[in-house]
Amino acid sequence: MAWVSPFAPKELPRLPSIDGVRFATCAAGIRYPGRTDLLLALFDAGTTVAGVLTRSKTASAPIEWCRARLDHGMARALVVNSGNANAFTGKRGREAVKLTAEAAAQTAGCLEADVYIASTGVIGEPLDSGKFTGLLGDLAAKASLDAIEQAARAMMTTDTYPKLATREAKIAGTSVTINGIAKGAGMIAPDMATMLAFVFTDAAIEPRPLHEILAPAADETFNAITIDGDTSTSDTLLLFATGAAASRGAPRIGLSNDPRLNDFRAALIEVLRDLAHQVVKDGEGATKFVTIRVTGAESPAAARTIARSIANSPLVKTALAGEDPNWGRIVMAVGKAGEKADRDTLGIKFGDIQVATNGEVDPSYREELGAAYMKHPEIEIAVDVGVGDGASTVWTCDLTAQYIAINADYRS
Amino acid sequence: MAWVSPFAPKELPRLPSIDGVRFATCAAGIRYPGRTDLLLALFDAGTTVAGVLTRSKTASAPIEWCRARLDHGMARALVVNSGNANAFTGKRGREAVKLTAEAAAQTAGCLEADVYIASTGVIGEPLDSGKFTGLLGDLAAKASLDAIEQAARAMMTTDTYPKLATREAKIAGTSVTINGIAKGAGMIAPDMATMLAFVFTDAAIEPRPLHEILAPAADETFNAITIDGDTSTSDTLLLFATGAAASRGAPRIGLSNDPRLNDFRAALIEVLRDLAHQVVKDGEGATKFVTIRVTGAESPAAARTIARSIANSPLVKTALAGEDPNWGRIVMAVGKAGEKADRDTLGIKFGDIQVATNGEVDPSYREELGAAYMKHPEIEIAVDVGVGDGASTVWTCDLTAQYIAINADYRS
Repeated sequence: MAWVSPFAPKELPRLPSIDGVRFATCAAGIRYPGRTDLLLALFDAGTTVAGVLTRSKTASAPIEWCRARLDHGMARALVVNSGNANAFTGKRGREAVKLTAEAAAQTAGCLEADVYIASTGVIGEPLDSGKFTGLLGDLAAKASLDAIEQAARAMMTTDTYPKLATREAKIAGTSVTINGIAKGAGMIAPDMATMLAFVFTDAAIEPRPLHEILAPAADETFNAITIDGDTSTSDTLLLFATGAAASRGAPRIGLSNDPRLNDFRAALIEVLRDLAHQVVKDGEGATKFVTIRVTGAESPAAARTIARSIANSPLVKTALAGEDPNWGRIVMAVGKAGEKADRDTLGIKFGDIQVATNGEVDPSYREELGAAYMKHPEIEIAVDVGVGDGASTVWTCDLTAQYIAINADYRS
Repeated sequence: MAWVSPFAPKELPRLPSIDGVRFATCAAGIRYPGRTDLLLALFDAGTTVAGVLTRSKTASAPIEWCRARLDHGMARALVVNSGNANAFTGKRGREAVKLTAEAAAQTAGCLEADVYIASTGVIGEPLDSGKFTGLLGDLAAKASLDAIEQAARAMMTTDTYPKLATREAKIAGTSVTINGIAKGAGMIAPDMATMLAFVFTDAAIEPRPLHEILAPAADETFNAITIDGDTSTSDTLLLFATGAAASRGAPRIGLSNDPRLNDFRAALIEVLRDLAHQVVKDGEGATKFVTIRVTGAESPAAARTIARSIANSPLVKTALAGEDPNWGRIVMAVGKAGEKADRDTLGIKFGDIQVATNGEVDPSYREELGAAYMKHPEIEIAVDVGVGDGASTVWTCDLTAQYIAINADYRS
């Protein structure tokens, strides 16, 4: 594909290794020959896991598998393939997952319940797990602490760059690392935005508090992005904690309200937000990164609904693509959201430019100001509804002819 | 604009005149010089009116005007302008409407309460009613029974053809005529789909039964179409009944459950459906007309929600544009709708081709069959959810690069 996001980083971040997590990748020929499409991650014994999965009512077979195992909360292996989502594949889909889990458990010397599986790619075509179950042994033999960039690459479909992020945090004085990788591009919307994101840390945190800090962190990051309003059948966010930092003095955390988790929680949100923004910036055909901040709504939920209504409006998104400061379409999107709004209290800003106040164009506003602002690659739209205190921020991208080109012949 | 819908009719239907309704149009220079952008319709005394208006929370000033007058239910004049929607124009917007109503009332020799007003075009720019209030007298002088095609043309914005429909109906043995005109193109979605539609009849029907038959008819026609999921601030459907057929023996109808209205009701639905389909077929950049029929949902409302989720999905719409039988995206759209669904009971058909059954690809399905079917300009997608008896049909179009081109520089 010739299209590359204008936000593609010149240089990828270098992630430190995390004790207890090893990666290996290869080209299994799942959809295209010679494309790296298989990832095996192996975790040392004692690794805990938490996850947030798609709320789609037509979730894929791997999603069902992961959901059923997250209560157990321990992980030894993660198998990810790109090229085929193993979604809407019925009984054969469940069988493919089962065969993959058996092979991975044998390879890792663990229970099947310790195996996590994710698939991304085309929906509705049977996945032949036989293409890769025989490769897992070789992958395990070559798995390395330093292969996380290859891991991020193995998950890519229409992504134009791999997405990596890292932060350090202190837990009771001991440094721990949080590394994350993600893939996104299309079918990105609230209700678990990215299709796949995996985060790894050497912190020692029990499964329950791990889940309790992950879910709200996902809500204000991945669940606040949208590319096209479509929700994947495969959205998966998993957080693995190896506990290796315990050997360097980090305490094992058993409760999510433990104040020693505060710095970790903040760093985790930063990693997730960083990855989520990278996903939006690599949205199919995206040329603008847009922050939509809604204030003055009846409630935070109402603010989120209004922000999403703006972010998902094709007319707003095409105006952004055309660098048209068409604030009338923002008014329209506020109106159609269905939440409480009063046309005559509405205010709109583009960056620092006051566009509209109390339901009409601001006396200070000049079209040239808006037009010049729209040339920026990163745009901030602030909407004050003026009926309450609810606030929410959502991130999105524009809708370009390139999006159509990518999606009108994705499978051909 | 070079783009013309492939569905543009070779020949426009010829509508018979209706006693008691006269039309005149002119170019008032509201946005572009020399473009016909002003319509005056005059109704004989005794004409009743019913309407369905946008549910947008940021409705335009003309919408507020009409909503406040519909209880009264009598009409003598309709003023429509294109080029400027007079939406989100604050106090000045209300003033422009008031000045228009005053001028039209003076021209028609009627109460201001008998004047209906509609505007379509750009949002957020003040409408200078002074550009046309002085022209209404001339328009009234030249108003004619036979100018309905010019009336349809005067409302066009990005429409590529005028939309006209006509039917005859019998009321207690007397023939009456129903003529309708509409404009659409962009910002078309449920909650009153077309931006403007006006229907005229010589039947004699009181305001209340007129409303009681119009509202459900709108629900199954205009409210069942969507082009881009965006809801206009100006959507307006008005039905005017002059009662002129009474002089030919038609009874005056006072109750909506009067069985003598059955044939009229059926003909009205046909006119509305005809116009609604024309609006979809002239959707911005549309190359496909798509019928989405959902059955087996938990309720009719759930079926409507699922059908809209499919119809509004950018990934489904771009697949249609690319003639890609990508039924996986339909599964995705069912899943994200949030209504009860069971992946393993889901069935999908393209026309007569069974694509998926019980949650996986049908054994008889071949990709070539689906690909060949997708070449048709008119596509039928049937989804059986398999969890209940609720059914609903929605009409939509594809999402093409032309939509982006039209909307990314609409104002430039």
